[in-house]
Amino acid sequence: MPTQSLQGLIETKQSFLCVGLDLDPAKLPAGLKPTPADMLAFNKAIIEATLPYAVAYKVNTAFYEAMGAAGWALLEQTRSLLPASVYTIADAKRGDIGNTARQYARAFLSVLDFDALTVNPYMGIDTLEPYLREPKGDIFVLACTSNPGFADFEGLKTEKGTYLYEEVVLRSEALQQSGRVHYVAGATRPEMLGNVRKLAPGATLLVPGVGAQGGDLASCFAAGYTVGGPLLINASRSILYAGSGPDFAELAAKEAAQMAHEMGVMLASL
Amino acid sequence: MPTQSLQGLIETKQSFLCVGLDLDPAKLPAGLKPTPADMLAFNKAIIEATLPYAVAYKVNTAFYEAMGAAGWALLEQTRSLLPASVYTIADAKRGDIGNTARQYARAFLSVLDFDALTVNPYMGIDTLEPYLREPKGDIFVLACTSNPGFADFEGLKTEKGTYLYEEVVLRSEALQQSGRVHYVAGATRPEMLGNVRKLAPGATLLVPGVGAQGGDLASCFAAGYTVGGPLLINASRSILYAGSGPDFAELAAKEAAQMAHEMGVMLASL
Repeated sequence: MPTQSLQGLIETKQSFLCVGLDLDPAKLPAGLKPTPADMLAFNKAIIEATLPYAVAYKVNTAFYEAMGAAGWALLEQTRSLLPASVYTIADAKRGDIGNTARQYARAFLSVLDFDALTVNPYMGIDTLEPYLREPKGDIFVLACTSNPGFADFEGLKTEKGTYLYEEVVLRSEALQQSGRVHYVAGATRPEMLGNVRKLAPGATLLVPGVGAQGGDLASCFAAGYTVGGPLLINASRSILYAGSGPDFAELAAKEAAQMAHEMGVMLASL
Repeated sequence: MPTQSLQGLIETKQSFLCVGLDLDPAKLPAGLKPTPADMLAFNKAIIEATLPYAVAYKVNTAFYEAMGAAGWALLEQTRSLLPASVYTIADAKRGDIGNTARQYARAFLSVLDFDALTVNPYMGIDTLEPYLREPKGDIFVLACTSNPGFADFEGLKTEKGTYLYEEVVLRSEALQQSGRVHYVAGATRPEMLGNVRKLAPGATLLVPGVGAQGGDLASCFAAGYTVGGPLLINASRSILYAGSGPDFAELAAKEAAQMAHEMGVMLASL
């Protein structure tokens, strides 16, 4: 558990930056090899360099799973590098029935001890409940994402005239008495992010898609940041691979500092 | 890759049984401890006992992830126990954008070398395409599942009057020129399984929910099995935990044999 609430962390650091640790062995800076030791050293350097500017870290599990059991060990070791002074998210997008969801809940919220897990709502609300039966841990329910394929299903209109992603938020809010339900809303569609905020005024919105995917920080802030409902803006590639030489950590820090500075200005305007 | 096509395996064994290796350390038979060695021995005994009756094995990754890096190693070792004479499915229900989906595709279809992976379509068709860019491997797209929460989203009506799960199948079939797109359709709603079959005449339907969840084999067969479009009926707990004593493997074989016998009678009626 983080030593402060996420709101407290944001107030202290005047930042709502989440750094995404999407570890790609093919993109390591010059001088680092795709060995477990070097990759862990890379993550450590990135975490240390960005810690003054980030309130949260998101670990994309796919990049670790692609390396097999050694990758899973690296995921565990990376989790251990994250201090209690930040909020930690496993970006695993799990979704399955009760019996199986309980295993995922245990894997990420207890065994790996993340503060939160991203989950996929497609199979229904009963597949979200098992996470909330763990002693602690938040869920970030996928609402509307930043990819073009958004329109296929998330953006489909229901017979009620609502969009599917709005139904997802409406129905997931039935679990909100727990205070542990939050949402993923992509940066590339600020108007939809604003719709999610209206339906879930007290939730934290995890926002991927700023930077490499073309989303805009100021538009997202205007659409969805409120005093009682923060955003977490995630940046992965733009920070991790800001440099490709031995100064990669310095350049990552510079990129994170720039984003946090912009965020601080926005927070001051609230 | 299996030595025969799935259709060939079904014809040879006169069975369309898939055994789900949902390894639960809390349910091991008397005499086996929840150690990696004993759990692997349990899987090995189950696989050997059921091999004459099963054409496919499905490994539910959640149960392995819940055990951390040791669990992932057990997943790899369990995969190695599965012979080339059966079709192998990683039931991981992954779903993410291109960059990340490529990592999942690599993890399950190349590194772990499964013949197929279950995937979640919520984020859109562009999140399914990366799997088909791997040199080999099928996907089973979640359509309609066997849990009560089905109605929340999968069973929502769109403004066109279709159900969401039908839209999932309709749009996923646009990738069917690959011949690698199949669907998950739960056993508890045979009429919906029949709808999936109509929309995807040549796909294999992976059907969980017979047994513990209350689905009925004969109704599923009638609703969705055709000469060109087989079903794979999955059974997990009813086989794995058929016995709780030292004769667990014998009882698992008996349960699998009974199911395969019923399937053989049905196949003969086609």
